[in-house]
Amino acid sequence: MEIQIVSIIGAGTLGSRIALQAAISGYQVSIFDITDKALDFSFETMKKILAQLDKGGHLKENPEKILSRVYFTLDPEKAVKDADLINESVTEDIELKKKVWKQFGELAPEKTILTTNTSYLLPSMFADISGKPSKFCALHFHDVFYSRVVDIMPHPGTDPSLIPLLEKFGRSLNQVPVLVKKENPGYIFNTMLLALIGAAGKLLTGEVASVEDIDKSWMVNFHMPMGPFGILDSIGLDTAWHVTKSREDSASKAFAAHLKTYIDQGKLGEKTGEGFYKYPNPAYKDPKFIQ
Amino acid sequence: MEIQIVSIIGAGTLGSRIALQAAISGYQVSIFDITDKALDFSFETMKKILAQLDKGGHLKENPEKILSRVYFTLDPEKAVKDADLINESVTEDIELKKKVWKQFGELAPEKTILTTNTSYLLPSMFADISGKPSKFCALHFHDVFYSRVVDIMPHPGTDPSLIPLLEKFGRSLNQVPVLVKKENPGYIFNTMLLALIGAAGKLLTGEVASVEDIDKSWMVNFHMPMGPFGILDSIGLDTAWHVTKSREDSASKAFAAHLKTYIDQGKLGEKTGEGFYKYPNPAYKDPKFIQ
Repeated sequence: MEIQIVSIIGAGTLGSRIALQAAISGYQVSIFDITDKALDFSFETMKKILAQLDKGGHLKENPEKILSRVYFTLDPEKAVKDADLINESVTEDIELKKKVWKQFGELAPEKTILTTNTSYLLPSMFADISGKPSKFCALHFHDVFYSRVVDIMPHPGTDPSLIPLLEKFGRSLNQVPVLVKKENPGYIFNTMLLALIGAAGKLLTGEVASVEDIDKSWMVNFHMPMGPFGILDSIGLDTAWHVTKSREDSASKAFAAHLKTYIDQGKLGEKTGEGFYKYPNPAYKDPKFIQ
Repeated sequence: MEIQIVSIIGAGTLGSRIALQAAISGYQVSIFDITDKALDFSFETMKKILAQLDKGGHLKENPEKILSRVYFTLDPEKAVKDADLINESVTEDIELKKKVWKQFGELAPEKTILTTNTSYLLPSMFADISGKPSKFCALHFHDVFYSRVVDIMPHPGTDPSLIPLLEKFGRSLNQVPVLVKKENPGYIFNTMLLALIGAAGKLLTGEVASVEDIDKSWMVNFHMPMGPFGILDSIGLDTAWHVTKSREDSASKAFAAHLKTYIDQGKLGEKTGEGFYKYPNPAYKDPKFIQ
């Protein structure tokens, strides 16, 4: 089978970026959400990204042509009517995702490959309720344009013949496909990133080193533009707290409690103007930070 | 006090690099080791690095002038006679380091700041035997030229007034000083690096993903030139095994056992031509690796 028509369920930041990259790559794309406001946000998001890409000379077609391949819809039936592949990016809530997969599993044609973009849940949680478990797999994008990894993570009942199709599809979207051979919450990258952040959190709450010295150590030794606390500010301290507080070990609990003190002050990171650093000009972006 | 004369104990790779950077920065430097062969190696190492730096236009003086400030010696008394600061980089062996610090603690003038460059041992293990515990501190370099972080890690008996002196000294060597407020094996960076490598090892031994896909995930998402297994190859699998096998958790034990299978085949990483990848042209350096 060849994937030609792609349906994105959930028109948030990530869903919009995936839909846009699919349109740039020549696919016919539908993108579904439940409010006009969500679809308007999605359209504006795509226009902004296209303008940036166009300015940088990264587009082979003009933005209008690319956008003409995207069909924005509030109608679930129309959204998936001819889809060869569905990728779902709704809010990370297990009950919501179950509801969505019950609905779209029924609406989707027999041929459709069903994929979820969940960050920390597992495809086996939704495979059965979709009604087509052998067609179901996780297909997890990062941010599509800057971080171009796509995780392919089957559940035990996924038809193995989907894997090469999804690898090919990922490459066609200018992504680097990686295979997660067994279900693993956080796939590959997030598992490692969490380990790094956990170690940084332990150094901080154990009063071994300051936020700035921990970040400097990482940035200077690896020549990276930010360290673990800068990364946390960009992820959002609320998101990090949700993941960290579910862990059982004492270091994670201490760090979750520390993150909570920021959250209680409304300091969620870059998006609220303050987290471990103050934005829009955080200390770590000043060249003097690492001199 | 002002640091003007620096004495490096141990003329291996790291000791030679520190001595050279000190000479480049204008210090008078003595470098001590116990064999002519070691000193010859050190001299050749410095000449090679100076040639590279000179070629890249990074030197303000000619290499001969810089080398003229380095005094190579087999004589322990002469090595530290006028030293304002000693930095010890002998083999990572607790008994050897104790012996060295007993000897040089006695030989060093009263004024001398005594520093160890140990990777995973702690300054409190050597402070008393040096005879001058308040003058004793860890001062830990990474590779001096590419990774320019220097950790300053006091033990509970270190005179706090040494800290700003060591920070200033670190900056004068073109390093970024970071303060490790409490003794912590692995300081800041190595603690985080080990957490990352541990997570990567667990993904591999748990058969979640391949060496290549784990490295791709890290490289592509963070735009880095290598991933955890490429890093392990450059550190040396024997070194990684020594650190990993001392840990108690089951994931570390499984990864240590896995590393041992490579070591038993003589695959220690880049230095033996093979580790997780084959050198000198490892797969991850091929641009196609992340396409």
